[in-house]
Amino acid sequence: MARVYNFSAGPSMLPEEVLRKAAAEMLDYEGCGQSVMEMSHRSKEFDKIIKDAEALLRELMNIPDNYKVLFLQGGASAQFSAIPLNFMQKNNKADYIITGQWAKKAFAEAKKYGAAREVASSADKTFTYIPKTTREDFDPEADYVYICMNNTIYGTVYHEIPDTGDVPLIADISSCFLSEPLDVTKFAMVYGGAQKNVAPAGLVIAIIREDMLGNAREDTPTMMNYKIMADNDSLYNTPPCYTIYICKLVLEYLKSLGGLEAMKARNEKKAKILYDFLDSSKMFHGTVVPEDRSLMNVPFVTDSDELNAKFIKEATSAGFVNLKGHRTVGGMRASIYNAMPIEGVEKLVAFMKEFEEKNS
Amino acid sequence: MARVYNFSAGPSMLPEEVLRKAAAEMLDYEGCGQSVMEMSHRSKEFDKIIKDAEALLRELMNIPDNYKVLFLQGGASAQFSAIPLNFMQKNNKADYIITGQWAKKAFAEAKKYGAAREVASSADKTFTYIPKTTREDFDPEADYVYICMNNTIYGTVYHEIPDTGDVPLIADISSCFLSEPLDVTKFAMVYGGAQKNVAPAGLVIAIIREDMLGNAREDTPTMMNYKIMADNDSLYNTPPCYTIYICKLVLEYLKSLGGLEAMKARNEKKAKILYDFLDSSKMFHGTVVPEDRSLMNVPFVTDSDELNAKFIKEATSAGFVNLKGHRTVGGMRASIYNAMPIEGVEKLVAFMKEFEEKNS
Repeated sequence: MARVYNFSAGPSMLPEEVLRKAAAEMLDYEGCGQSVMEMSHRSKEFDKIIKDAEALLRELMNIPDNYKVLFLQGGASAQFSAIPLNFMQKNNKADYIITGQWAKKAFAEAKKYGAAREVASSADKTFTYIPKTTREDFDPEADYVYICMNNTIYGTVYHEIPDTGDVPLIADISSCFLSEPLDVTKFAMVYGGAQKNVAPAGLVIAIIREDMLGNAREDTPTMMNYKIMADNDSLYNTPPCYTIYICKLVLEYLKSLGGLEAMKARNEKKAKILYDFLDSSKMFHGTVVPEDRSLMNVPFVTDSDELNAKFIKEATSAGFVNLKGHRTVGGMRASIYNAMPIEGVEKLVAFMKEFEEKNS
Repeated sequence: MARVYNFSAGPSMLPEEVLRKAAAEMLDYEGCGQSVMEMSHRSKEFDKIIKDAEALLRELMNIPDNYKVLFLQGGASAQFSAIPLNFMQKNNKADYIITGQWAKKAFAEAKKYGAAREVASSADKTFTYIPKTTREDFDPEADYVYICMNNTIYGTVYHEIPDTGDVPLIADISSCFLSEPLDVTKFAMVYGGAQKNVAPAGLVIAIIREDMLGNAREDTPTMMNYKIMADNDSLYNTPPCYTIYICKLVLEYLKSLGGLEAMKARNEKKAKILYDFLDSSKMFHGTVVPEDRSLMNVPFVTDSDELNAKFIKEATSAGFVNLKGHRTVGGMRASIYNAMPIEGVEKLVAFMKEFEEKNS
């Protein structure tokens, strides 16, 4: 079968160039006679791969020297525990903003380890907007404020970073990682699962300001202690080497396209095509308030569950796959990460127009 | 460069057939128009991959129905914490046998969470043997006894499983996973990092008797709670999908070769070639007592650090790579996992003979 347009929320499309390169190098990486899958993580070949990946990430995201870059495992879900274990240890307090399922899960996990507080929530309107906050909303004694930057399921994003005053801000950026420039200096930590915009599943990248490290609870599992991971350059034990290699290839690809400013322009263009159509359609409607719409995840519905199901089925047959909304919300969702080409969105919109004509 | 013989202790060689198949399927898995790297972990395609992997593992290892098979992340090191968090919770006691660095690390981690006790150790002779124990050595109130089955660094293995009476036995089988048949019913849990015999790095497989589950400490990080992972069929969050896919390919390959009895015969043959030479050589010596020698990891030395270094250098040039011993012990080590062909060991021994002749 020809390659499909894959609108999966994650794991999701990877650049075809990256897949071709990985396939070509599968049995022999740069003449060393081994696959990257087979390399010792302490070999000079892999050492160069992980260092190159970090250097590229630092360059693309403009990460200051006083931030550590960690390659971790366990998904964002493991960080939901690691964050309070590492950081909620001075005053044993943390403030959470609840903008969807992932923030909720992070909040639930934090409550195991200290006084986590819900500062604001958009649960009242099924997470279709980002609640506005001001500096005064946050507890100045909180060890940190936690947000989920882009909400994969509900399709909202923070277009403006909350002002938390002197309280360190931590953000899950899984589903907007590398989709546009981000001012890392406004955060004490940002992190994300790689399986949306960066690499296959099985890798988390965390970017942590150095002064945050060193206060972990004594019984923190070693593998969740960010200081230990940082002191060992992410090689305390065997990291997910092959996934880090694919990450490196993706970062090289992003650099070749012009970096994050170029990705932003491209992603805005893609999202505009889809949102403009949703705003003009009589059949399909976006579910998010316009000012908080994500560039990456675009949920939409028709007025009928039957029509939704028919659309998803026919779209799949036409090569537009994984358009079904998250199992907790239903409807449709098009995830249009970096690797989704503009023509994928153009063709989807053409298909939606045709579907609307035929079914009106 | 031609493919090398890679004696790395892990990550390590994978069967060439597996790498070729993965490369061929990289852009389009079985006609679905996507790479396995790009698939939703909730897609029907990936659902079949993970279920096939589990079924193959159950068949190859003859795993009884009352055991759960979990696909996890974080390496063995994450399980060092998860094991006491999940299991050291009835009497808050556990017995550890110290046979090397990995058992030591597991023991250190357990002490964070309860009364972990060292029952026996082979530290007195640099872990070159397996300490003998009897049922009476173990605390009948211990929540479990912990062993490291095959010691990657020191090259020892339990040829006989310790009798722990009614106390549940837990074993790290990372470096002997699938190398020969194992009576799973003698264990409450076995687990291993996949990056030696099973798959690339980034995957742990745990096999746990069901009655062990459900007693985790309340503040156990969700991702370390085996009951939650079991209740969600390892899909609580996004698993390392591509690594699980390679695991499936390796399991298919092992089955095609005749399963674990066939692997045992092949691994014994390979190990015998190397040990027989070490026993006859005047220059090279094995470091482990004969009765506890591993089939997988064969450490050896000459009487001179200079000669060791010369040997490693010349072997590398000749295409026998990663023969350097672990950084904590020095000397040499040949890891001859399932994917190392017999001819790799034959050629290594021929090279060693030639080296001995030239340098005597």
